[in-house]
Amino acid sequence: MNSLKDHFTQHLHLLQSKICKGLEEEDGKAKFVSDIWERPGGGGGDSRVISHGNVFEKGGVNVSVVHGDLSTQAAQQLNVKGTSFFACGLSLVIHPFNPFVPTVHANWRYFELYDESGITVDAWFGGGTDLTPYYLFEEDAVHFHSVQKNCCDHFDGALYAKFKEQCDNYFSNHHRGEERRGVGGIFFDHCREGTHHNLIFWKNFTESNSNVFLEGYIPIVTKRRQISFTDQHKYWQEIRRGRYVEFNLLHDRGTLFGIRTNGRTESILMSLPPTVRFDYNYIPVAGSEEERLVKVLVQPRRWV
Amino acid sequence: MNSLKDHFTQHLHLLQSKICKGLEEEDGKAKFVSDIWERPGGGGGDSRVISHGNVFEKGGVNVSVVHGDLSTQAAQQLNVKGTSFFACGLSLVIHPFNPFVPTVHANWRYFELYDESGITVDAWFGGGTDLTPYYLFEEDAVHFHSVQKNCCDHFDGALYAKFKEQCDNYFSNHHRGEERRGVGGIFFDHCREGTHHNLIFWKNFTESNSNVFLEGYIPIVTKRRQISFTDQHKYWQEIRRGRYVEFNLLHDRGTLFGIRTNGRTESILMSLPPTVRFDYNYIPVAGSEEERLVKVLVQPRRWV
Repeated sequence: MNSLKDHFTQHLHLLQSKICKGLEEEDGKAKFVSDIWERPGGGGGDSRVISHGNVFEKGGVNVSVVHGDLSTQAAQQLNVKGTSFFACGLSLVIHPFNPFVPTVHANWRYFELYDESGITVDAWFGGGTDLTPYYLFEEDAVHFHSVQKNCCDHFDGALYAKFKEQCDNYFSNHHRGEERRGVGGIFFDHCREGTHHNLIFWKNFTESNSNVFLEGYIPIVTKRRQISFTDQHKYWQEIRRGRYVEFNLLHDRGTLFGIRTNGRTESILMSLPPTVRFDYNYIPVAGSEEERLVKVLVQPRRWV
Repeated sequence: MNSLKDHFTQHLHLLQSKICKGLEEEDGKAKFVSDIWERPGGGGGDSRVISHGNVFEKGGVNVSVVHGDLSTQAAQQLNVKGTSFFACGLSLVIHPFNPFVPTVHANWRYFELYDESGITVDAWFGGGTDLTPYYLFEEDAVHFHSVQKNCCDHFDGALYAKFKEQCDNYFSNHHRGEERRGVGGIFFDHCREGTHHNLIFWKNFTESNSNVFLEGYIPIVTKRRQISFTDQHKYWQEIRRGRYVEFNLLHDRGTLFGIRTNGRTESILMSLPPTVRFDYNYIPVAGSEEERLVKVLVQPRRWV
């Protein structure tokens, strides 16, 4: 238990329990159920799933620690060189029932690549978190982004603006005129040993970012969970969840990489919302709250 | 109105009206609404949409007749050579409300490719139809396949077996252990001028196949539409519709080609089911009707 990868792996396991506990306490009813799985090619994971809670309709907090040979196809997809790999990460998506409570996603990961003789040829951290509201409360977006900015600023004053922009660019339905999935957050990837920061810096940053997850999300849940809603609000939530599905299955690199490299399907698709609607050409009423949300998705704002 | 492409285009327009009329008569309540659109790069289409019917919860019958420059990316995706193209096709997906009535999909299309000087360098037909039941009635699968086989046999005794197999191979969720989307039908593509058959043969075959669509589908609807169902049956239908979404967004070449080449999003995603569920690791009860269906999807049968 001396190497960076062992330390980070242990962090992810503890983090998983901490996040699940925090979400269970907020929910007050449902408990996460653990599904431990092995990967035929090497390694495995622990998929923890929550459903039918007071607040959380469906959610998953998945840790995977995998290693093995890297197929030529997978190396091409990742745009990297190497013959074998190690990867560990925690990935979570939480879908609340109440349309006034936003969906949240987060992921923190570490990747190592080796050549034929087992020498590490590359290593990097990645991660971030983003918020997907169905109705826009500006103060919630401000709170969520403030937590992310504070975390980033502690490390380097230039990080937040860069990672916030990357998040807006990444979580975007390109086929719908760059309509974003939500109000964003931060997204970082390929954070390697470099001139400005070394790998330990990125490990510390990634861990720190994962540690503020509950602080960013739970207060928003607490604030919105009691708002009463109608069938129309629920309908709109399910239409928006359709866009979540479109993003995840058409554009998300992690999902597509997992599917194409024979990853564990149920753990990869754990992110999909519980109930979803696809209507032909659904357009919100002009001047409505629904339209107000879409405007922010098409033209991301600076929240802090 | 002399060329093969003009003839086939005209056929598609008449076919669209015929199919919409047949479906409206079966439904008895809902009517198709036409949405005519233009493609910025050349051409356009007519998307006809039905919703909230007695039988049909959501459906679309789309004709598109498009032409223009072929981007290098698009040519690569299609695995063809050419600098400009013409394409016309009718594409339909019908999602009934009652889980005992199967979903159906069909598509018939014609493609021409040109070089810099406008000379046709390639031309082909493609198409087919496939049935997606939520509960298995063997006689329905037999009827559907019989209509397809009769149509094929009229042209060439070897076609049905080949196109049936291609259909089973194509409409498959590879990430779920080759679980097929449904009980299949026929699928054919790249049917060119060749040693056995010329392009006129394939035009006649494609038109003939499109003309038997209603004969294959409507009698099944009529037979099953009155069966009463429970919330559990509906739940299962929505789980299976989730697999339909997975196939269309992860694997369907037509959908991905359309999305990546800036096609008309609403017409491309018209195929998605109206209400959908994604549960974590949903497994049907052993010995249930639901499990009986899945067994046939994993191991396709010879129906005729």
